[in-house]
Amino acid sequence: MIDAIRKEFESSLEAYCDSLPNTPLYHPVKYILSLGGKRIRPILVVLSSRAFQGDDKVAFHGALAIEIFHNFSLVHDDIMDEAPLRRGNQTVHSKWNDNAAILSGDAMLIEAYKQIALTGKNCLADVLEVFNATSIEVCEGQQLDMDFEASNSVTVDQYLEMIRLKTAVLIGCALEIGAILAGADDADARSLYEFGKLAGLGFQLQDDYLDAFGDPERFGKQVGGDIISNKKTFLSIRALEKSTGKTADELHGIFYQNAITDPVEKVNRVVSIYRDLKIDIETREKSNYYFESARKSLSCVSLTHQQKTGFRELLAFLEGRKT
Amino acid sequence: MIDAIRKEFESSLEAYCDSLPNTPLYHPVKYILSLGGKRIRPILVVLSSRAFQGDDKVAFHGALAIEIFHNFSLVHDDIMDEAPLRRGNQTVHSKWNDNAAILSGDAMLIEAYKQIALTGKNCLADVLEVFNATSIEVCEGQQLDMDFEASNSVTVDQYLEMIRLKTAVLIGCALEIGAILAGADDADARSLYEFGKLAGLGFQLQDDYLDAFGDPERFGKQVGGDIISNKKTFLSIRALEKSTGKTADELHGIFYQNAITDPVEKVNRVVSIYRDLKIDIETREKSNYYFESARKSLSCVSLTHQQKTGFRELLAFLEGRKT
Repeated sequence: MIDAIRKEFESSLEAYCDSLPNTPLYHPVKYILSLGGKRIRPILVVLSSRAFQGDDKVAFHGALAIEIFHNFSLVHDDIMDEAPLRRGNQTVHSKWNDNAAILSGDAMLIEAYKQIALTGKNCLADVLEVFNATSIEVCEGQQLDMDFEASNSVTVDQYLEMIRLKTAVLIGCALEIGAILAGADDADARSLYEFGKLAGLGFQLQDDYLDAFGDPERFGKQVGGDIISNKKTFLSIRALEKSTGKTADELHGIFYQNAITDPVEKVNRVVSIYRDLKIDIETREKSNYYFESARKSLSCVSLTHQQKTGFRELLAFLEGRKT
Repeated sequence: MIDAIRKEFESSLEAYCDSLPNTPLYHPVKYILSLGGKRIRPILVVLSSRAFQGDDKVAFHGALAIEIFHNFSLVHDDIMDEAPLRRGNQTVHSKWNDNAAILSGDAMLIEAYKQIALTGKNCLADVLEVFNATSIEVCEGQQLDMDFEASNSVTVDQYLEMIRLKTAVLIGCALEIGAILAGADDADARSLYEFGKLAGLGFQLQDDYLDAFGDPERFGKQVGGDIISNKKTFLSIRALEKSTGKTADELHGIFYQNAITDPVEKVNRVVSIYRDLKIDIETREKSNYYFESARKSLSCVSLTHQQKTGFRELLAFLEGRKT
């Protein structure tokens, strides 16, 4: 079901890109939108709308809004993070320059709102309210992420709040907007928001886990990348909280004083410490807790088991249990 | 009338700023919004709404949206232009850094949409459509402005299109949104848009004129600033188009090869060439043409002479005929 929607969405995105003016402002927009990605968020809008027998034409405008917004945030985040690559290709600011990335990103944020406006008058106020609330939270999440980089005292709760804002709420928002557009009642729309948000939290924690403990063959990114770049993740924050004595000193040395310069040695040592501290087990448990909570939220939605098939498929996809 | 609205708007803006969270994301937002400025755009929303007996509460949300959007564009433009000062104070990226300016600017754009959403359901679709169309045009204008910096063959028509997008449409949009919010009919709302756009074009050309020919005592900025920085303006573009032979060579030398390094000498020489070419007269005529066209658009609006008092006052203010 997900794969079928992805295919339809890619066509719709392609048509959208073709409709943009062929001027310098829009070249980076077309570029970043054509780099692919899992397209999870727009798929969720369509999935949710269809579950409530919504109008596909309307849903695809909502889906485009969410995907354009998501890519806007990637373009601007990549400038801030000075990231050279995105999905294996040059980031917009690397390929063009910072100014082009700032301005084309701005245009994308506005283009997302244009798609919201195209969903029609019926539920515009409700959709706009959810979209506004979520968009500003994504900015707040990015701000926290930047604040954390400069801090050595981030707690697990602060980290969870950051990933809630930066990652999870947009997944919830996608599902809620799909439901609203299809005329679902408030309670169902809100339960689907919770479902998406919780699944998003589970997914992010699992992503943290896989960076250290994932199968290099199956994990899409470089295993140990977070460790090498001293990135604050659930694992590193929890390990710093949990460790005492010599282990605590060693972790501080590694993360804050660059005590191990060889990347392979660094990853091996940190992973070994994580295992000793049972961080692997704890992270899996936390991730599973969120996935389980997501399942509970889904059970509150007044649809039949059959109608929820797509949502379960999505959860399986996020959990990595994809069939 | 304008001064009274400005005072009310400042209170409303202050209340808005006080309502923002006290976190790093919003510090630059509060800072830039408190730097003052003429507040022409938000005043226009209120003026227009009141002319059609609109609800003030609704109009002030529209006014906030326009002013927050305008300041968002200033924050991001200042990064792109590497401008150190704005209204005599540090720009956001100078006071904080580029990342803070990018992200807080993004938050402002979203905050503008939150104010649009607060104008209520009645005319949300119409207001959002005008606001979206204008916002993207402002980005297109900034892109043209950047493109022009790297080009030696900008025509007067291209320049006029750039200032239409970058400056004039937002003035039109402010008036149109005020009218829509007050329930004015489409034709009146559109005529006010045209009135604002044309007045904005006249104002920008006059600003170009005053940079070279203004009274240093009355002009708010450094006289000759555009000439010193080789900025493309109506004057410089028209002079390059109009000049021939030795004068053309001299202007090319000055603007493209930095032939005169002393700023005072440079300004004096360029102003003298402008006068010889009658660029001063031509620019005044062009500016007056737009102001006159604006007056014609205003005459199409189905309000009484008395009800149009505020709009005439605004035009006088923009023309510098302020009483």
